[in-house]
Order: sequence, then C-alpha cells, then structure tokens
Amino acid sequence: MTTTQPVLEAAVLIADTEEEILRLVGNHDDATAGVYAMIRYHLGLDGTGAPAGKRMRPLLGLLAYASIAGDYKRALPGAAAVELGHNFSLVHDDIEDGDRERRHRPTVWALHGVAQGIDTGDMLFSLSRMALHRLSDLGFSDAKVLRLMRLYDQTCVALCEGQYIDIATSESDEMMSVDLYFDMIGRKTAALIAASIEAGAVLATDDDEVIARYRAFGWALGLAFQINDDLLGIWGAEQSTGKEASDIARRKKTLPVIYAFEQAGPEDRARLTALYDDGGPTDADVTEIVAILERTGARDYTRDQARRHRDEALAELDAAGVVDPEARARLEEIIVSVIAA
Amino acid sequence: MTTTQPVLEAAVLIADTEEEILRLVGNHDDATAGVYAMIRYHLGLDGTGAPAGKRMRPLLGLLAYASIAGDYKRALPGAAAVELGHNFSLVHDDIEDGDRERRHRPTVWALHGVAQGIDTGDMLFSLSRMALHRLSDLGFSDAKVLRLMRLYDQTCVALCEGQYIDIATSESDEMMSVDLYFDMIGRKTAALIAASIEAGAVLATDDDEVIARYRAFGWALGLAFQINDDLLGIWGAEQSTGKEASDIARRKKTLPVIYAFEQAGPEDRARLTALYDDGGPTDADVTEIVAILERTGARDYTRDQARRHRDEALAELDAAGVVDPEARARLEEIIVSVIAA
Repeated sequence: MTTTQPVLEAAVLIADTEEEILRLVGNHDDATAGVYAMIRYHLGLDGTGAPAGKRMRPLLGLLAYASIAGDYKRALPGAAAVELGHNFSLVHDDIEDGDRERRHRPTVWALHGVAQGIDTGDMLFSLSRMALHRLSDLGFSDAKVLRLMRLYDQTCVALCEGQYIDIATSESDEMMSVDLYFDMIGRKTAALIAASIEAGAVLATDDDEVIARYRAFGWALGLAFQINDDLLGIWGAEQSTGKEASDIARRKKTLPVIYAFEQAGPEDRARLTALYDDGGPTDADVTEIVAILERTGARDYTRDQARRHRDEALAELDAAGVVDPEARARLEEIIVSVIAA
Repeated sequence: MTTTQPVLEAAVLIADTEEEILRLVGNHDDATAGVYAMIRYHLGLDGTGAPAGKRMRPLLGLLAYASIAGDYKRALPGAAAVELGHNFSLVHDDIEDGDRERRHRPTVWALHGVAQGIDTGDMLFSLSRMALHRLSDLGFSDAKVLRLMRLYDQTCVALCEGQYIDIATSESDEMMSVDLYFDMIGRKTAALIAASIEAGAVLATDDDEVIARYRAFGWALGLAFQINDDLLGIWGAEQSTGKEASDIARRKKTLPVIYAFEQAGPEDRARLTALYDDGGPTDADVTEIVAILERTGARDYTRDQARRHRDEALAELDAAGVVDPEARARLEEIIVSVIAA
C-alpha cells in the first residue's frame, strides 16, 4: 500500500505528532482546564517555546511505518500514544526520584505538588490509550487496533515492572548484578522503544516476520540507548567538566558501577564499598571512583556493550529488508545519533 | 443467549472475580515478585485473610450481564478490569491524600514509600487493561472488545479529571459550588460505577437502548453512593460516636459543607468561615459546625439527594426491563444496601 511518500524531515514528523497530541490535550471545559495546562506544560506544548523532548519514540514509529508503507500520516495516532505513554512515565519518575527539574524547568510536581503530579501522570497514561482509538477512525481494522492495544498494554506492564526493579535496587544497600541490570533496562527502556517501532510495523504490514525484525531492531536500539546514557552519565562532556552532576555523585547504580562491583579485585571492591558507604561522595571520591571504574575496565565494557547493541540494531534493520532509501537513511541517522560512543 | 443461570450469591461472584484477578497478579518471575506481592497486599488477596473491599463494581457488572444474558462467567474479565482500575485509583488517592491506613492496615505507600506506591498504582492501571484482553480469548468479537476498551479508557480519563478537581478544590481556600461538586463526583465516582454496569450490558447485548438504560442506572447509583458516603462521613454511626474522625474534623469539602456555605445566612456563613479558618477544628468546633449544617438544612438536603438518585437508579433498572427475577433482586439489594439513608 505504498502511496506518495512525503518528505521525512524530523521537524515535520515531530510537528505532525504534536498536532496529533494536541487533539487530546487541548482544554475540554473550565473545570479541568488546569490539568490539561499541566499536561501541555510537561510536554513542552504550552506555547512558551520551552525545550521539549527529542520525540525519539514517535519518530522511530513513524519512520518504521514509512519504511514499509509510505505516507506516515496514518501512523500518527500510534506515535502520539507512545509519546504520551513515555511522558506518563517521566512525570511519575520525577516524583519517584525526587527530581525537581527537567529540561531546565521545574517538574510538574515541583510546581503543583505530589498529588497533582501523580494525577497528571495518570491523565497522560489514560490519554495515551485514547490516542490509539483514533486508529479506528482512520480505517484500521478492529483486529489491527486490538493487536496494537495488546502490544501497548503489555509494554506498559513491562515498563512498570522495570520501574519497580529500578526503585527496589536503588533503595537497596546491595549492588545489583549485571544480569538484573539488563533485565531491568529491557523492561524499563527497551520495551517501549521496541514497541514504538513494532507498532509502526504492525500498522504497515501483516507480515509477522517483518514485524519481528523491526521489534528486534527496536529492542537492540533501546538497550544501546540506555547503556550509552549510562556511559554519558559519567564520561559525558558535561559530566567530565563538572557542568552537570555525574551519576557517581548522584549514587546511581548504572552499568559501569554495577560492572565494576562485579569485576573488581578484592582491594578495589572494598575501596568502592567504602567510598559509596560514605554518604554523598565528595568531588575527590568521584575522581577516585571513576579511576577504579576505568582500572576495572568498566568504561571499555560499557562502551563495547553500547556499540554491540547499536550494531545489532543496524543488522536487524538490514535484515528487515527496508527498501525505501530515505526512510532507511533517517532510521540509521537516529541509531547513530543516540549513541555517541 | 440465555444459558443456565448459576446461583448469584455475592460471595460466589466475588470469589470468581478474585480468581480472575489472580490470573494477572500472581508472581511472574523472581525479579518482579515484590511488586506483585504489593499488589496482592493492597487487593486483600495476599492470603492473610485481611479485609478486602466490597467488590461492588465487579458485582454490579456481573449482575448486569447476568440479568440480560445468563451465565455471568463470560463477563469476569470485565469485572476484573473495573476492580483493578478502581484499586489503581485507591492506591494513588492514598498517596495524594496522605492516608497511611486503609481498612485497618497500612497503605502501600506507608509501608514501601511514595515511589513504590506510585508504581504499584501504575501496575494496577496497566493490569486492568490486560484483564480486558482476555475477552478475546473468551470469543467476544474484536468490535465488542474494542467498544469496551473505549468505554474503559474514556472512564479513566474522567476519573483522573475528577481527581484533579478534587485535589484542586481541596487545596483551594475557596469553597467549591454545589454544581462543581456534582460535576466532580460524576467524573470521580459515578463514571466508573456506570462503566462497570454498562460494560456488563455491552457484553450481554447489542441493544443500545438497553445499554443506555443500564448506564443511566449506574450513573444515578454512583451519585447516590457518593452522596450517601458524604452523609455518613458526618452523621454515620462511627462519626457520631467519635469512633472515627468526622469529615468535618478532616476538613473535607463534602456535599453538606458545600451546600451549607452556599445556603447559609450571612451570620452562619461568617461563623463557618471563621471555624474553618481556625486550623484543624477542635471537637467543640465540629459540634458547632454540625449544628450550623443542620440549621441550614444541609443534612436534609444531602439525604434527599442521596434518596433521589437512588430512586432514579431503581427507576432506570425498572425501565431497562430486567426479566430475570434473581438478578433483579440482587441488583436491588445492592442499590438499597449502599444507601443507608
């Protein structure tokens, strides 16, 4: 069902996605105007020109659709759904992590309190489902819409399970294993990125083999994305220069740290334990911890893992047999851009 | 499609609903066992014999189905969904209201912290959707399952909108209007009770006129239920004898208070404002406030409103033309039992 392909500029795809989202998050009535305003504020759609997210998930979904079936516009409700779902999790994560800032603005809960913060996240969650119902209006079969809903609902369960593991391991005195880390980021991060891409494929084709390839591509990309984020959280330009707090200072249990605890010799491990037990690490502590991570090979290991999963994503994309050269190029751009390593 | 009707004992319907719920909330793997344990704890399904909720919503849904189409078992996934959805909102409400106890046990967040409390609610929300997918396994058409999902998703939006109004008006210094109160409880309480009953009808019949009657019955019942709850929050046996804190002492803006502020003469209104401005009302303040409410006619008004909506619920049930005498009797029992007035 290839139709005339519109230009696949990211800015255009994002603008169309935001228009689709605004259908759902505009004001409905006076009594609830406040909560829709909080939603638009969080989404960066409040007309203030505030920096919004990268919209990576909808972009990937639309490009996946376009790479198979041409005009991406029919896939916009799916793109809106994954972006709203992603933002539901961000709004709740901000409360759970006690983060008062996101993209240089106060978070919803920091401005309006925990109660409204929780409810704003719940609204985003509910509205993400409403986005999917518009697929029926666009003429997709009931079977297809239901298949997409099942995919989305399973993904939300995985997302919340991953969040549970994240909170539980963050609060625990013990260091998690590398195996559990991969389990966690699979649920917490890769599941939704994979689902975004799979959704695009499901809407575009009935070929289950092709759909499975796209999903595998998305899963590998999702893992690579998170691992690279962990790498940047310690060795990123902002972190290396002290412009932003390192994940070490924030005591986050990211892959390099988890790997180092698992692989370090007895002496380094004892030192790491002592440095972490010591309340919030000082600048000198951070420097020493980073040195131990590098000595243990944690930096190389993490970079290798990010690259390995990125390459796997590229290989799955090749195996999916994408023919449209523009869609292929855009997808590859995203894969390469999310992974600096 | 009337089949042999099983006995419609509430205890049996509840046991079957809980079995349906346990399909979804049993442990899946070691890494996530903790969050499923929190879910079962909250639901009173942790095998400790702790008091659970009344399961009113699934009961109503199953009876609505049975009253039209016989054996209620095919409607169990819908019943499980509304009960899980209701409990998602309870878990989040407990955090939003700062309530550390529910049914004489610590709430999830009081035991495990705000972060896990939020996530447990999100899990219940996600799992409520998974419950609905089992309708496909039971042979319901895709169109029917999708119709139910749309109903459920719209209901969740309304629920969160109602919660927004509740939080906003609770935190505000101003008293809300009686009109806004009815708007709020419509979204926050009546919508889900109406949807529970409507879902039973949707699964049982294609007759849109019958479905609309059941929905109207549920909506009126939902309003009556909430208004009666407001009445008991001040004049209930436990509250009158001081065994439980009155809604007045908890500064809750319930219908009697809102009505009194709207209807009181200048002198009583000034006195009410002074008593409420005075931090937490003392026992003497509560007694005086209750006297003003009674003088203003707030108690009579609230009781009349509860009765009026209960009678409307009964009238809609009659108009729906329920023929099965047992289902009719059970539905009427619930209507009567939830409203003491």
